[in-house]
Amino acid sequence: MRMRAGSIRVLATGTFDLLHPGHLFYLEQSRALGDELVVIVARDANVKHKPRPIIPQDQRILMVSALKTVDRAVLGDEVDIFRPIEELQPDIITLGYDQHFDAVLLKEELATRGIEAEVVRLEEHDPCPLCSSRMIVAKILEERSLDEERPSPSG
Amino acid sequence: MRMRAGSIRVLATGTFDLLHPGHLFYLEQSRALGDELVVIVARDANVKHKPRPIIPQDQRILMVSALKTVDRAVLGDEVDIFRPIEELQPDIITLGYDQHFDAVLLKEELATRGIEAEVVRLEEHDPCPLCSSRMIVAKILEERSLDEERPSPSG
Repeated sequence: MRMRAGSIRVLATGTFDLLHPGHLFYLEQSRALGDELVVIVARDANVKHKPRPIIPQDQRILMVSALKTVDRAVLGDEVDIFRPIEELQPDIITLGYDQHFDAVLLKEELATRGIEAEVVRLEEHDPCPLCSSRMIVAKILEERSLDEERPSPSG
Repeated sequence: MRMRAGSIRVLATGTFDLLHPGHLFYLEQSRALGDELVVIVARDANVKHKPRPIIPQDQRILMVSALKTVDRAVLGDEVDIFRPIEELQPDIITLGYDQHFDAVLLKEELATRGIEAEVVRLEEHDPCPLCSSRMIVAKILEERSLDEERPSPSG
């Protein structure tokens, strides 16, 4: 692992839609691996492997930046997702337990670009009632449909 | 305003469901009025003036506590909402621009309990695309109904 004047820069990445404790756990685990945590927040246009984000990118980055555990958050690059990683030169890149990146392919691409970062796959957090954006959306849809089934006060 | 060894304690209160920049703005404005920000997070059972929270209280307090601007967050009292205020003895209590408390009645009740806090009603934040829990829920319901109207890939 390359050291920067005694300071280890950790990079975490993600969409961070509907911020929840699962995100927090991932970011806190990441921060604990070094001295500084920088976060790349995915642009709306780049989220293609799962439903489009509910919360727009500017609002997502604002919320991530507001967390105690985060030193800085930047938006991803729309065309080349490795460009901000080259600029940030992290010592460690963390992957959440459920992130879809292939760690081996990622390491290969980093190597071809001369980025000497360690890639660390983090563990799953303890169960938590609404620790995924999908679960939060599902609960909202479920509660709303219950509201619609319930007779109105006048009926 | 009563001073505590040169340190001004500000108290903010709210439900903080589906944390968004409107909450952040309210908390940052509150923190700017003093030296320490304590937040009372409403219990699920006590949210009666608006739809019940999507996010359970333990998860809401965890997210509020994770914000840079917040020194400490505590759950409200289920029976007597003034009890934690008596314990915390804040110098300033802030009300968000859209919070349903009547500032005059609140000051009267504080006075009868010997709580010498200034009550400050804060200004509305700049418009922001999804800066209320209601708007976030509405967007989720709208997007889901669009998904349902869209023909399936096979049809």
